[in-house]
Formats: sequence, structure tokens, C-alpha cells
Amino acid sequence: MDLMEEQLALRGVQLEDIASIVFDLQSQYYPDLNLATCLEAVRKVLKKRDVQYTILTGIALDTLAEQCLLPEPLQTIIYTDESLYGLDEVLAYGITNIYGSIGITSFGYLDKIKPGIIKDLDNNTINKVNTFLDDMVAGIAAAACAKIAHAQTENLVSGNHHENQD
Amino acid sequence: MDLMEEQLALRGVQLEDIASIVFDLQSQYYPDLNLATCLEAVRKVLKKRDVQYTILTGIALDTLAEQCLLPEPLQTIIYTDESLYGLDEVLAYGITNIYGSIGITSFGYLDKIKPGIIKDLDNNTINKVNTFLDDMVAGIAAAACAKIAHAQTENLVSGNHHENQD
Amino acid sequence: MDLMEEQLALRGVQLEDIASIVFDLQSQYYPDLNLATCLEAVRKVLKKRDVQYTILTGIALDTLAEQCLLPEPLQTIIYTDESLYGLDEVLAYGITNIYGSIGITSFGYLDKIKPGIIKDLDNNTINKVNTFLDDMVAGIAAAACAKIAHAQTENLVSGNHHENQD
Amino acid sequence: MDLMEEQLALRGVQLEDIASIVFDLQSQYYPDLNLATCLEAVRKVLKKRDVQYTILTGIALDTLAEQCLLPEPLQTIIYTDESLYGLDEVLAYGITNIYGSIGITSFGYLDKIKPGIIKDLDNNTINKVNTFLDDMVAGIAAAACAKIAHAQTENLVSGNHHENQD
Repeated sequence: MDLMEEQLALRGVQLEDIASIVFDLQSQYYPDLNLATCLEAVRKVLKKRDVQYTILTGIALDTLAEQCLLPEPLQTIIYTDESLYGLDEVLAYGITNIYGSIGITSFGYLDKIKPGIIKDLDNNTINKVNTFLDDMVAGIAAAACAKIAHAQTENLVSGNHHENQD
Repeated sequence: MDLMEEQLALRGVQLEDIASIVFDLQSQYYPDLNLATCLEAVRKVLKKRDVQYTILTGIALDTLAEQCLLPEPLQTIIYTDESLYGLDEVLAYGITNIYGSIGITSFGYLDKIKPGIIKDLDNNTINKVNTFLDDMVAGIAAAACAKIAHAQTENLVSGNHHENQD
Repeated sequence: MDLMEEQLALRGVQLEDIASIVFDLQSQYYPDLNLATCLEAVRKVLKKRDVQYTILTGIALDTLAEQCLLPEPLQTIIYTDESLYGLDEVLAYGITNIYGSIGITSFGYLDKIKPGIIKDLDNNTINKVNTFLDDMVAGIAAAACAKIAHAQTENLVSGNHHENQD
Repeated sequence: MDLMEEQLALRGVQLEDIASIVFDLQSQYYPDLNLATCLEAVRKVLKKRDVQYTILTGIALDTLAEQCLLPEPLQTIIYTDESLYGLDEVLAYGITNIYGSIGITSFGYLDKIKPGIIKDLDNNTINKVNTFLDDMVAGIAAAACAKIAHAQTENLVSGNHHENQD
């Protein structure tokens, strides 16, 4: 199990949880999509260096807030998931963006309806603090959706499919 | 009627259409919110220079595509609202972002569920081409939502409310 | 002294240090610009909620890295200011962006040439870890430059100067 | 010659012009870097779909402004390269960002010092309007710099080099 999979598992998130969110969102557009393809897309997203750095940082902030190791007022802001604190969305959006702008709407939608594991994180039924993780999971799922959209669509511009992928 | 209101009206969008989307999205969080406050928030968003430049540019691209004045392959890409063309989301996200990152999720959500006027634009029941305008209206509404959220919430950090607003 | 001024001072950064960077960058464009106007612009930037949250978070990560309280591999990445770790630029760019896109180039330029206090932070002649702070100071300075540019320029679109400012 | 190379050539920009900017900026960090590697990096950047869409759109707006086909006030704003119009930076930044956040500073720096072809575009010694193109060339060069930085550096997180590249 690689570092990202391990880090997410330690916070109660399995890659399959994320893949199933991707499947539910994209299967309406791509009827022949299957869960394995979604899981592969999630794994590809997690191979990106910027994504890895972002996840490590967001999980560290959540964990430090759980341990009350952050300085005030940040400790209270992150511990209580203060509604106007937007860095969680900023980091998650950075993940979403790795396959281009088409992931923006999926991210916002997932962050709003909070399907599956995202809801469990938002409710803190898993962990005490998920201020960053719930958004980052939405961001990973949205990036995987964008990757699938790119893969399923011919490149209308250069006709060069492979090179335009991840 | 100012330039922005006029430009949007020429494309079939009234500020009240945008304000009612804001009201539907935010009234659940702020029970005492009214339509007039939402309309005022929309007007404030439209006073921002970057927003004005973005709207002028997006509407110009939609209109030029209607007139088939864009060079190929861009003419076809924008005329057909090619699904992987993401600049419409990029411009709209730039509008959303003027009151900070908390508008991201509202934008994505609105861009996905397409309530009211956004759906009419997406369906092209108004105008022949709305590749940019439907996303920009979602972006304006999301920015207005963020403005309302900021206005309704005390500033937990500096306690300085007014200065933290637009 | 407000919270932001205090937080920055605790890390060895005076608002005057940032203002003088702004002055050096903008006085070539605006001959009648003075240091007091630059300092006022810096103070206005620091009143923005998103800026405050970003600074609190970046300083917390720098400080925790100094105290070796971050989990590995993040501890090493931030402690050594790993060159491909880009979240410091992402946070700083978020600050720069509050007055619109015209701050982007000033930020990149300042982050590259590292004038004055930015160099001292980058060299760690102040503090042991400034992975976030050096970029955030560049971001604050760039935002102040953008604010001054907006203030010094007539609004060519709506003719409405004040409303288009912060 | 592919579509992007052709589109840029029609506006007076050769890929070699961009590659030499990349070489000048990166050779100080990577002594064994050569121009061929920089040219290959530029070509890889131009294979990305979002980059292609952005370039097509920016060049179209420059060309339409030259032909005075844009509606007012946008025609004047783009024709005169109005200093507070920031969409050119926004589009260019979207290009820069495809290899992650480390390109931000290179973009800002190049957009400020305007080396080689960027200066010629900014001066309009080539074409009548380059409001978008000068920034987009800086964005392409910055993205190529980021690609080279990723390629030259081991992945400290996952140890997985190839997968973390484009």
C-alpha cells in the first residue's frame, strides 16, 4: 500500500469509498463506466506530487487540531471548522484542478451534497476533526471525474488523445 | 441602468433572476434573509472591476460565436459548448472568488443543478450561445452568496466586520 | 497593535518592511507615491479575513516545523523548504489575488528577486523556518501593489471608483 | 507542424523563442540543461488540452481586437492593453499551473522582466495587439520551467518519478 493510500486509510478513508463517489457521479454520462476504472482514476490522481503534498498538509492540520497542538486562534477555527475559513476549499480546489478546470463544478457539487464518505467525514463519525479531509476527498473525487471525462472524450483540438491525458 | 445591468439584460438576464437564485441557496442558512438583500449583494458583485471585465469578455465571446465571427476551431468549440472547454468555468470561478474561497462550492453546486435562469441559458431558450454566460451567472450568484455569508457572520479573527467586507 | 501586526512581528516582520517593498516596486509607476500610502495599503490587505486566515495557517506550519511537531514526511519537506512543495506559493497567491489578477506578476517577481525582508526570511537570518512566511510576505506586498494600482487608476468601465476598491 | 505551433507562428512566435527563455531561466539551476530539452518541454506543454483551448481563445481575442471586431468598451480595453484588465494574466496563469504551483513565480518574473520574444510582443513590434499573447508566452515558458523542475527532481514523496510527470 503506498503512502497516500496508507495516510487516507489511517484517517478512515478507503480508495474504494472515493471511487464509488466518482462512479455515482460519472456513470450517468458514461454508461459503460465501471468501478475499477474509477478506482484506477483515483489512484492516478494520488500519484501526482502536488496532490500528495496537499493531502499530507491537510491531514497534518486536521490531526494537529485533534491534538490541540495548533496556536490560537487557528486551533479553534480549524477544530470548529469555522464556516468562513476557506483554506480547506483552496487546498481541495488545488487537487481538483490537476486535470484542468472541468473538475471545478464536480468539486463544488460534491462538497455541497456530501455523498458517502464525505458526509461521514463532515459529520465527524470518523475522526474528531476533518476540516481539510472532507474537502480533499471531494477534490480527489472531482479530479478523478475530470480524468475520466478527458479519457472518455476525443481531443477535438489536436486529435492527440494520449498526450493530453495526465 | 448601469453598464453591467444593461449588458446582462441585453442577453436576457435580469439582476432579479440572479438574486432569486441567491435567495433560494442562502435562505436556508439565514432565515431572515430577504430578496432585496440578495439583489443588493448581486449589485455589489457587479461593481467589482474584475467582474465587469470578465462579464464583458465572456458575453463578447458568446456573441461573436453566435455571429460565427470566431476563428476555427474555436468557433465550433464555443458554439457547441464543447464539454472539455473549461475557460467558461475559469472565468466564472474568477468572479466567484472575489469574496474569497467560500464561494467555490456554491458555484460548483449552481453550475451542476442549474436553477432558474441558469437552466434557461444552458438550454439556450434565451440566446443561441451561452457557453460563458450560464457559468458567469452561476459565478455572480455564488459571489453574492459569499458576500452574504461574510456579512451575516461576525469576523472571528479581528472582530473588525466592516473592513473585512468587499 | 492588531493580531496580524503582532503575529508578523513575532516572526520578525514589521509592516514597514513590507511597505518599503511596495514603495520600491510601485514608485516607478506612481511618482507621487509615498511610504505612508504603501503602509496604509498593507494594513488594508491585512484587514481581509481570507488573508488573516492564510497568514495564521502559514505561520503555524512554519512554527510547528521549527518545533519538529509535524508528521513525516511533511516535517522534512517544510523544514527543508523542498523546492517542489508548492503550497507556500498557493497560499501566498491566494493573498495576492484579493485585489484581482493584476497582483500575480508582482508576486512572482517579488518571490524571485526576494528584496529586503523577503531575502532575510528566505535566508533564515530571521527564524529557523520561513517556508510559508517568505512567500506570504511577497503575497501581501503584491496585494498592496494591486490595491495601489486600483486606487491610482480611474475605473474605465463603470467610472465608479470607490465601489471598485476593496 | 501541429495546430499550436502553427497558431503561434502565425502570430510571430516560434517554439524556439519560448525554449530559449526557458533555457535562460533554468540553466542556472540545472547546469547540464540544453535547449533541446527546453524545446521538448515547451512541446509537451502545448500538448495539453487546456493549454490549447486557452491559446486559441487568447489569440482569437487579440486578433479580433486588431480587426476592431470586439464590442465596446472591450474593444478599447483589449486594444489598448488597459493595465487593470487582468484576464490576460488569468488565462496565462491557467497555462502556468498545469504542472503545479511551482510555475507561479517563474510566470510572474517573466511577465515582469519580459525577456526576448515576450518584450517584442509587449512592444507590439510583432502584431498590432498582443494583450493576451505576451502573457500566454510567459505562461507557456513558466509551465515548461515547472515541467523541467519536476523532471530534474526526484519525487521525495512517493519515489514514483514518471507517474508524477505530465
